[in-house]
This record gives sequence, structure tokens and C-alpha cells, in this order.
Amino acid sequence: MRILLAQINPIIGDIQGNTEKILKGISHAKKQHADLVLFSELCLSGYPPQDLLELPHFLSALITPLETIQKASKDITVIVGTPRVDNTSRNVYNSAAIFVDGKIVGYQDKFLLPTYDVFYERRYFVPGSERRLWNLCGKRIAITICEDIWQHSGKLTTSYPQDPVNELQQLNPDLVLNLSASPYSLDKVTSRIEVCAITASSLKCPLLLCNQVGGNDGLIFDGHSVFVNAEGQLLQCGKGFEEEMMLVNLEEQRSPITLTEDPMESLYKALCLGLHDYFDKLGLNKACLGLSGGIDSALVACIAVDALGKENVLAINMPSRFSSEGSVADSEQLVKNLEIELRSIPIESPFASYLDLLAPQFVGKEPDVTEENLQARIRGMILMALSNKFGYIVLSTGNKSELAMGYSTLYGDMCGGLAVISDLTKKQVYALAKWINRNREIIPWNTIKKPPSAELRPNQKDSDSLPDYDIVDNVLEAYVEQHQSPQEIATLFNYSLDLVNDLVKRIHRNEYKRRQNPPGLRVTEKSFSTGRHFPIVHRF
Amino acid sequence: MRILLAQINPIIGDIQGNTEKILKGISHAKKQHADLVLFSELCLSGYPPQDLLELPHFLSALITPLETIQKASKDITVIVGTPRVDNTSRNVYNSAAIFVDGKIVGYQDKFLLPTYDVFYERRYFVPGSERRLWNLCGKRIAITICEDIWQHSGKLTTSYPQDPVNELQQLNPDLVLNLSASPYSLDKVTSRIEVCAITASSLKCPLLLCNQVGGNDGLIFDGHSVFVNAEGQLLQCGKGFEEEMMLVNLEEQRSPITLTEDPMESLYKALCLGLHDYFDKLGLNKACLGLSGGIDSALVACIAVDALGKENVLAINMPSRFSSEGSVADSEQLVKNLEIELRSIPIESPFASYLDLLAPQFVGKEPDVTEENLQARIRGMILMALSNKFGYIVLSTGNKSELAMGYSTLYGDMCGGLAVISDLTKKQVYALAKWINRNREIIPWNTIKKPPSAELRPNQKDSDSLPDYDIVDNVLEAYVEQHQSPQEIATLFNYSLDLVNDLVKRIHRNEYKRRQNPPGLRVTEKSFSTGRHFPIVHRF
Repeated sequence: MRILLAQINPIIGDIQGNTEKILKGISHAKKQHADLVLFSELCLSGYPPQDLLELPHFLSALITPLETIQKASKDITVIVGTPRVDNTSRNVYNSAAIFVDGKIVGYQDKFLLPTYDVFYERRYFVPGSERRLWNLCGKRIAITICEDIWQHSGKLTTSYPQDPVNELQQLNPDLVLNLSASPYSLDKVTSRIEVCAITASSLKCPLLLCNQVGGNDGLIFDGHSVFVNAEGQLLQCGKGFEEEMMLVNLEEQRSPITLTEDPMESLYKALCLGLHDYFDKLGLNKACLGLSGGIDSALVACIAVDALGKENVLAINMPSRFSSEGSVADSEQLVKNLEIELRSIPIESPFASYLDLLAPQFVGKEPDVTEENLQARIRGMILMALSNKFGYIVLSTGNKSELAMGYSTLYGDMCGGLAVISDLTKKQVYALAKWINRNREIIPWNTIKKPPSAELRPNQKDSDSLPDYDIVDNVLEAYVEQHQSPQEIATLFNYSLDLVNDLVKRIHRNEYKRRQNPPGLRVTEKSFSTGRHFPIVHRF
Repeated sequence: MRILLAQINPIIGDIQGNTEKILKGISHAKKQHADLVLFSELCLSGYPPQDLLELPHFLSALITPLETIQKASKDITVIVGTPRVDNTSRNVYNSAAIFVDGKIVGYQDKFLLPTYDVFYERRYFVPGSERRLWNLCGKRIAITICEDIWQHSGKLTTSYPQDPVNELQQLNPDLVLNLSASPYSLDKVTSRIEVCAITASSLKCPLLLCNQVGGNDGLIFDGHSVFVNAEGQLLQCGKGFEEEMMLVNLEEQRSPITLTEDPMESLYKALCLGLHDYFDKLGLNKACLGLSGGIDSALVACIAVDALGKENVLAINMPSRFSSEGSVADSEQLVKNLEIELRSIPIESPFASYLDLLAPQFVGKEPDVTEENLQARIRGMILMALSNKFGYIVLSTGNKSELAMGYSTLYGDMCGGLAVISDLTKKQVYALAKWINRNREIIPWNTIKKPPSAELRPNQKDSDSLPDYDIVDNVLEAYVEQHQSPQEIATLFNYSLDLVNDLVKRIHRNEYKRRQNPPGLRVTEKSFSTGRHFPIVHRF
């Protein structure tokens, strides 16, 4: 039996465009003499469609395209992910439509509806109720959707009252198919393959998983579709971070393979894809960003160049009276290495103008963070003016450690259409910068080596107002990503409880700033940008 | 039987403070010789606790306070809303703890977990499974939590597979209690009382509902606790928008009452409470805002004065080369009427400075929205500088119609800690302004009468770039709040389909701006600020 896994990059709500991609996949499958073509979860609507699912006219708009796909299934079996509305109850299901030779055979609804972190499926869908096998192409096939196979693997922190894989064990399938829209995060690719392996071993049959690829707002889907045999050995793996039509021949003899992905390379590709698709799916292509000479903006510039092309990236250097010569030189070296345009727009004149204007208001007050924020905000305004005049989208360059600590200026360096590295800790920023420089210097080594500074007052260093980033990052990961208590964190790292409590308070206190941050690309299991909901006003 | 409904205003996560309020309620109930004291849903944690519920140390922190409350229940029955962790499964329930005379009698878990709009309960909770009556104070009492009684009323657009009220009918309770955290929106108070009436009539017994009061981020809980008799007649109603200890004597003869609330008065009180609690629960009290002479900022100034006191509100007039004399005069009249401080900070000098600085970049380009946004952003920067220097929280003044259309400047007039009227359409803004002026002119009539203008270029009117607000508001309410399709809206209002499609596209296209808006007070069934999740990048 020959199966094509159509790992495509749908656009949310672009039902027509997605249908065309699906028709191309079917046509490709036929050319490859495939018996069956498998698409990813909700690929007709794109995943996650969010509240579009609450619009009755959105759901109605799926009907005709499904009929078109049905017609195209002549001489082949097609399984495609789509929202399904039950005609009597009006309930909506996250479903797989099964077409055989021009006819609809049925729908397999998803059982386990994740409603944690970045998932909100219980908001929209009712869980499936009938577990069965499907007789397709002479085999008894179990059709599962994403989360359906995760409970059994023991890899979830959440727990469902039912386990579809256990239920399938009694049905003895010949083959398991899985339609996924499983977003990327560090280590996720390995986990997902393990889940497939555990499922296949438990059910003693091969498993094929087709995963969505592409960026949708902050979520990045990495592809990496999977074919494991009945022993749970990985035999084929789809490309990461790009579309692919992966043909699987179940009868062909294949040796097990090991996925040897460099985690830094995957991370970098994920960020490039997320940035590329954010622009591309909006029909835009030009980005601008402020280059400070520091490591964060340097990293974002590299990603932007790889995602959009060097001709589409404009860097702006906006020196102030406090900018060091080194910073300007580092920016110049970087743009030379990246071959992008750099403009220099010194901020002294508007800065002086604001200081004059506000002097009567500030009589008797010492300079403080106000004057620092003014500089950051002038820079934000200049970038936004270029954006408004020429159509550039501003990339913001703050990292996760800064966002956690509130070490950033609202309406200043937080300005932008997309926060490219807002889910990378400072530690990860350095690691990725070094990976970029693995063959040759792209980011000036001086940028990587010098101590981080916002350069908003004379001789300022980040370490004046923050503990070492090592400490910040350890507390951040333990508290935000692993939900450990301050007491547990203090014990784990041998930090004083006061220090940890202080950092945790700071994380909560800056929720109000993060609420106004641009959407950020998610690359960890818990990002500030999406999938985390803490009150601004609370006293825990 | 005497029952005290303790309608309190908890602070989210302030377990100690909330416990003290609960203990005071118990002590008050004893003084009033009540047999039972009923608190609101999750009042120990405050509602909604959001992702605090995912922190194991948050859940553990509830244990000792519950023991304290148990001890305080000596000689009385206490029913208090709290998250409950099942010791074996580790499942978390939205629950009511029932204490009688110093002992824990049991927990009644919530059955129906709303997971739509502003509710995310399936994210955190598992639904209850055992429906029973409780023998308390010689009566067979059904204990329900908020949503549990809504399915039966037919007032939900969502549908659950079970209906707890139907199940209770077979058990024949003597009395129904309901712990609620039911947020305010226009018309919600009437609906909630109707739901109580329908439930009581169906079960042929009296119903008492204790609702939370207070503002939590964007959500406003209005109180208005309810006592209806077995015929579904309203006998007592708690105060709106403030705490109250409402004593109900079930045996006392009472005549039915009708709630005669002025919707505008309720709306105004809701906004005042939301603004007040946002500040108060953060431990802050001073606000500043830009006064343009227009109706939106005038309305926000009125609300701020009533919520925070006139001594805590600073108004800033920031005229530009395009400001009319009328606008300045209107601002001056308003602050005189409100008796608040007004400072004038003309923006010409930084504006000229930016234009000079950017002139080399903008060679050959005509003035456009860029120069308009510069002015709005300079004003935002000035407000933020005052905020940073003196600790004022900036109030942003954009309304829902502007947010829908993107007729606002990101990092300009959208700056702020709280968007006070972001859930009011322009039509509602006018209605509320007229209500404020019902006895005497507070908002200058000239502000109300003149055509809306952003005054960012000579003789600008909102109507230059937008259809009439009547049209915008009709489409906005039908599309955003009622999920009608463009075709349905065009037919309903006899608008051209092109016009409606254009406005709907505009609503979607400006999602990116709204994502960076400050949190806004929710007063309708569908606000942009919370409870609405559309992708930024999509093509529907």
C-alpha cells in the first residue's frame, strides 16, 4: 500500500487557497500511484482557526470546498482534516473527512481536545464519541487526530479520562493514521516521534502521522511527518519547516533511521519560518529594525535576512548622547556582514526637544528611568514613522528574559509588528548567536562578548538593575515553564528565597507590559506571548 | 431559616485578604442570627484566577485558609467557593466547600464549565459528577455553581450535553443555592434574574444566588445577588456594584419587587467600579489622561473623577498646530466643571524636531498618516513621561468603534494602563455623555454636538475616513457581537454588500493593533479586549 503524506502549509481562513493545495496534493498522490493521501489536522481551515469557528458563515463556507475535494477523490482515498458541523445538534467537531473514489465514507472525530497552553479546543469542539476502524484499501485502519495518541504516551501533564489508544488495542488495527497540527517547540520533534513509536508498539502496527507546517501568528508548525513501523522504529521522517509530499510504501523494506537534528539549527529554522510566514501570509515583505550594536537586535537582523532576503531588511542605527562608539561600529560591521542597508538617525534633537518641553513639569526632579524611556520611545517613534511612510513592518527585538523582568520600554523598544525572539532567554540568544557564527563571523564577536547594556545613561550595564542573566534565566525557566514554587527554585539552585521571590514578583508585576507586547514567535513549551494567562491585577 | 448572602469583592490571588473577608462575613452572619452564610463562586481565590490555577503552590496555599474557615463555621453553616484538588486524581474542581458547625460536610463541584467568550473553565477544571442534595439546617438543599442553572434557562448560545436543573427536578429540593461569579454586561442583570426565576419555577422552590462584586482586569462583576421564591418572583436583590451583606429570611412574607435599573446608570457604575478596582487592587490611585476637547476623553475624565476622586486625576491638553480654539476651550470648560487640574503642553516643538529629523528620509514623499501618527505618538510619549516621573497611570480613551476600524494610533492615543471605554461604541459614548449631563452640563454641550475630529490635519473630520458612526456601529454590533454574516448584515440594514464587506475586512485587518491595546473594561457580551480570539494573520 502506498500512502502520500501531504505536509502542506495552509493559511488560516483561506479556504479557497487551502482547497487548491489539497487538490494539488491529491493530484500529486495520483501521479505517484498512491492508494491513499493523508492531510494534516484541520488543513481545510488552517490550524488554529480560533474564533472563526464561531462564525456560522465560516463553517458554511467549508461545504462547497469539501464537495470539490470529494469529487477529486475519484480513484483514490483521501483523508483531510476539517471542522465538521453535526446537522442535527449543530455541534462542531475537529474531524477527518474520509473520501473514497468520489464518495464520502464518513468522518472520524477527534476524541481528546487539548485545552491547555496554546490549545483551546474545548472552546470550539465537542469530543468524538464513536471509536471504530475504517476498511480502506483492504486494510483495517484506525484514524486518529493529533492529541488522540498523546495521552497513551505518558508525555502529557494533563490527563484525560479516556485513552483512545487503549480502546484501539481491542480493535487490532492494521495501520494507524494520525492527522496533526502539532506546534514546534524545543525538543518537540523528538517527543512527537516517541509518541508515534509508543503508539505503534502498543497497537503492533505501523503508524503514519501527517503534520502541518508553517507559521500562524506566534505558532510555528514544523512538519516532520512520521512513519514508524509496528516495532515503533522510525523509517521515514518528513522535512522540517517546509512543505513536502512524502510517499510511504508500506511494503517496501526500509532500515530504521535516527533523526539527527541540531537543536540550534531547528530553532533557527523555526524562527525564520515564523517570521517569513507572518509576513508572507499578510502579503508583506519589508521589515525594518533598530540596531543597537547589542546581541538581540543583531540576532533578529540575521533571522530577518534569512527569512525575507537581504534586500527586504532595513536597519536603523539611532545613536544618542549615551551610545558608545563600539556600538555604532558593531552595527556597521553587522550590516556589512549581512549586506543590508543601514541608515543612521541620531535621536539627540527630539530628545533635547522633549527635555526642554518637560523641564517645567519636572522641576526639582532628578533624571531617572523617565529620561531613559524617552530615548527608547523616540527610537520606537522613528521606526514607526518609517513603517507608516514606506510600509516596513517593525521587528521588535526583546528577549524572554527582558520581558520577564520588564527590562524593556513599553512603546519604545517594545514597538513592532512581530516580536521575533521574545520566547528566547538571554542564554538561548547567546547560544543561537554562536551557532550563527559557527563557520564565520556574521554577528561581530565583540557584540557577543561585551556585557549587555541598554546605553540609556552613561556607562549603564544591564547588571546594574538585574541579577546575572544566568540567575534570571534559571528562575524564569523553573517558574514560568515548569511551574515550580519559589521555595523549590531556591532549593534547586541554592539561591536565597528572597532573591527568588523578588524575581517572581517582578515577573508578575510586568504582566501589564507583556500584555501590550507584539505577538511573539513561540519556541518553548511556555511562551509569554500565547498560551499563558495570568491576571494583571492580583496579589499572589 | 435565615441566610446571609455575602456579596464580597475578593482580590484574585489574595488568599489571606479574601479569607479575612470571608471570616468577617461569617462573623456578621452570626451577629444577624443567620443559619447559613453563602459566598460567591471561587471567592477564596477570587474569580477568575486564570493560570494561577496551574501553579501547584497556589493550590496548596488554599489548604490552611480553608481550615481556618472551617473552624470559624462553629455554630453556623458556611458555603464558600474554592478550587478543590482531588487527592487521588489531582484533578481540580470549581467547587463549593460546605462547613457545618466546625466540620467539613463535603464539596459540591460545578457541573457545567463555561469555555466560551471570557470563560476558560475547561482549561483548569474537571466537571463534577455527583448530583445530590445536602441536608443542611433541616432542609434538603441543592447547591449549584453559576453556569449550572443557565443551560436550563435556554439563554445560552452554547449547549451542554447535560442539564443539572433537570436532574435536580427528580430530587425535589426544598431550596436551591447558587454561588456565582457572573460578570456584568448590558442587560445581564435582567437575564440573570430571569435565569433564577426559571430555575426556581422549574424546581418549585426558592432560589438564592450570591454573586461576586468588583473589577478584575477587564471583567466587572456587578453583585446584584438574588432571592426568588418558588414561583420565580423576585423578592430581594443585592446592591449593584458594591459589597453587601444581604440577609434573607425564608419564612418572612415579602411582596415581589421589580428591578428598575436605569441601564445608563448601571453602565456608568460598572465603568467606575472597573476603573476604581483596577487602580485600588494594584495599590495605585493617580491617573492622567490627554484631553483633546473631544467626547471620548471627556467621558473618560468623568469616569475617572467618580472612580478615583478629583484630586487624583490630572488632565493634559496637548495642542498642536492643527488644534482648534474650540477644542482647547472645551477642555478648559470640562476641567472647570470637574474641578480637576489641567496642564497644557503644546507639542509643536518635538513635532517640528521630528519633521526636521525625518525630512532627509522622506524626500519626495507627501505628508500622510505618518505625520498624523507622529502627533498622536508625541502625546502618548508626554503622558508616559508624566507617568514614569510621577506614577500616574495613563488612561487611554479610545472607543470600540475606533478600535474596530483601527481609527487610532498604536503607541499614540492607544497608550495607557487601562482602556476605560474601549467596549463602548461611539453611539454608546454619546448616550452615556448625555446621561452624565442629565441634570446639568458637566461635559460641555459643544463637545457633544460638534462633529468628531482627530484634529491631526487641517479641518479633519472622522467622516473623511470612515462611514457615519451609525453605520460603523450597526455593522460592528451585528458582526462582532452577533456573529452575523456580511450578507445578513447588508440585508438587515439595507446597506450595500460592498460597504459591509469593506467594514468587516477593516475589523479583521486591525486585529494587530487591538492586540497591543491596553486591557479594556468589558461591558458588552463581546468585547475586543477579552474573550475574543481572532488570528492576526488569516484570509477569511
